[in-house]
Amino acid sequence: MIVKTQYVTFDQELKLRSGATLGPITLAYETYGELNADKSNAILVLHALSGDAHVAGRHAASDTKPGWWDEAVGPGKAFDTNKYFIICSNVIGGCKGSTGPATVNPKTGKPYGLSFPVITVADMVDAERLLIDHLGIDKLLTVTGGSLGGMRALQWAVSYPDRIRSAIVLAATARVSAQSIALNEVARQAIYADPNWKRGDYYDGERPNVGLALARMIGHISYLSETSMREKFGRLLQEREQYGYEFNTEFRVESYLKHQGLTFTKRFDANTFLYITKAIDYFDLSLGLSSLAEAFRNVTAKFMIVSYSSDWLYPAAESEEMVRALLQNGVDATYVEIKSDYGHDSFLLEVDRLGGLTNDFLARVQKPHPAPKHKK
Amino acid sequence: MIVKTQYVTFDQELKLRSGATLGPITLAYETYGELNADKSNAILVLHALSGDAHVAGRHAASDTKPGWWDEAVGPGKAFDTNKYFIICSNVIGGCKGSTGPATVNPKTGKPYGLSFPVITVADMVDAERLLIDHLGIDKLLTVTGGSLGGMRALQWAVSYPDRIRSAIVLAATARVSAQSIALNEVARQAIYADPNWKRGDYYDGERPNVGLALARMIGHISYLSETSMREKFGRLLQEREQYGYEFNTEFRVESYLKHQGLTFTKRFDANTFLYITKAIDYFDLSLGLSSLAEAFRNVTAKFMIVSYSSDWLYPAAESEEMVRALLQNGVDATYVEIKSDYGHDSFLLEVDRLGGLTNDFLARVQKPHPAPKHKK
Repeated sequence: MIVKTQYVTFDQELKLRSGATLGPITLAYETYGELNADKSNAILVLHALSGDAHVAGRHAASDTKPGWWDEAVGPGKAFDTNKYFIICSNVIGGCKGSTGPATVNPKTGKPYGLSFPVITVADMVDAERLLIDHLGIDKLLTVTGGSLGGMRALQWAVSYPDRIRSAIVLAATARVSAQSIALNEVARQAIYADPNWKRGDYYDGERPNVGLALARMIGHISYLSETSMREKFGRLLQEREQYGYEFNTEFRVESYLKHQGLTFTKRFDANTFLYITKAIDYFDLSLGLSSLAEAFRNVTAKFMIVSYSSDWLYPAAESEEMVRALLQNGVDATYVEIKSDYGHDSFLLEVDRLGGLTNDFLARVQKPHPAPKHKK
Repeated sequence: MIVKTQYVTFDQELKLRSGATLGPITLAYETYGELNADKSNAILVLHALSGDAHVAGRHAASDTKPGWWDEAVGPGKAFDTNKYFIICSNVIGGCKGSTGPATVNPKTGKPYGLSFPVITVADMVDAERLLIDHLGIDKLLTVTGGSLGGMRALQWAVSYPDRIRSAIVLAATARVSAQSIALNEVARQAIYADPNWKRGDYYDGERPNVGLALARMIGHISYLSETSMREKFGRLLQEREQYGYEFNTEFRVESYLKHQGLTFTKRFDANTFLYITKAIDYFDLSLGLSSLAEAFRNVTAKFMIVSYSSDWLYPAAESEEMVRALLQNGVDATYVEIKSDYGHDSFLLEVDRLGGLTNDFLARVQKPHPAPKHKK
């Protein structure tokens, strides 16, 4: 499956939750499959912190790696491109083609850097709605994603209840916990501490890659589970037989993390890391309300919520809280906790089990309403 | 209770597990209570990563804070100084009076820095044995500690089975997990990344306090639990009513962590952080053996092992693994999992519950052996 990233620029100012405005806005996006005649088969896939518009397939036959969720999106897969028209776009604040802190601000001719306004998950969703308008789609069959993608699926249901028929929320939370904020803040502090960061004004010099790699390593630990790390690495040493009694990388888990940190710096922008983690920390659908249930009062979409047993970043209990709040509003909500040792990353990896669930769920969403039952 | 830190210097070379030697060695220590006539009431308390010899009491009446485990050590407390002679010493590699990387190497006249040899938990225990010899104590009533202190209690039982009658091991593990190594390594990387670190050679200039604060923040997250953070901080903001939409400290949990990081830099040395975390990572009693049970084959001490339900750094399952390995050797081992929301820090905080347990356990350890039962 060869795909091409497309770009659309909206020459308008988006009003942000902070009160600031952002514009013009360019969104990078990709589509897969065909939009049907009545435009009823469109699915918006929402990426997580480090993702992008390139969810599946390859940009060229020579690409060594496919998109970030190729296991789940494609012909016959969990999100079947033979049946559905799949859309995925890079978030605003991102660094993969959509307008973000590394973008040149047309008003100054320089990259935004920290003059880029702080954005929220709701702002990201507002920008995604511009894209759905642009594609001429009135109502999405579903919005789906894991982690930050799941948060945006929730936000879509709250911000635009009339524009989606369903939402599939994976490994997410409706209000980010103190522990998650703590991990994100320490990761941001690692970037701030890099002398190359220069308060975000580094685009014409050395990048704050040491800080960004540290930030990624901190994040990465939270994406795995104790069990998966034990099974994958245990106490194995890397390319040595015994302890070296020195401050080098010795354990395989150390080597793995360093590699993860390093490769991340080659594909990601440190300022985007700051903006996206800040948006995550701000995410609290119950903000200013008396309860989470109140946040869902206008929701009409059918919901499928999936948590993963070993996810300690957004643990199952937080999905259960969402489900209870949805059910209090009479929302048609299905909840599944998948047993998995892969931690938060399970949403990317446990794709086979997800496939069965999404097939059944989407079939039910598409089924015409049953005739109302009459009492005898 | 006014106490004074004492110092003893051993003018000998300690042979380390790495093959290197270290000497002369100074140990800072404190004692509480009175050693009885037959020297049978001595308890060695073993501190964790950031602890020191000052376990209880105050150095001066004007001290605002007592020692690090004052709740547990004192007259009528879990470790009752009316009954027991309590000893606590700073580990080698430490920065609280014992020989460590900040100590001036008498051979060069300069601080050791990274020329200080990498030490292990077993090396720390070997140094502690020198102190027990110096105090003229043949057999300790018990050795006890949490976290790294618990590891040393285990190591005492393995290295010097004839020198202890019992061990009370809190919130520890017999082999440090991949996840713990990962957290320690990222914390060390934060120190390495600080330009002031200068490969450990910073004692005559600026300290790598930014890196050390980051390291402490990473560690601190692992000492708490998701529940305790939610209850203590939740999503509360610090000194503000609403989101600032800026990259400042906004959430109370961020403010708390920054404070923890900052205060740590005022009392701790970055190189010591490196050496002690490395010793922790190396800790694996089963190293080179076919099983953990084999490590305990010469153990004669009675054991009490305590884990805490919300400790995710050294989870209860790792204590259970220890208990099984001890029982396989016929060791008299008591195991208690204390239900607590305080995470790894529970061992410092759940002192009331610990008191009942230690009283009963130590009474049993001190009880004369029952007459052997004869078959009728």
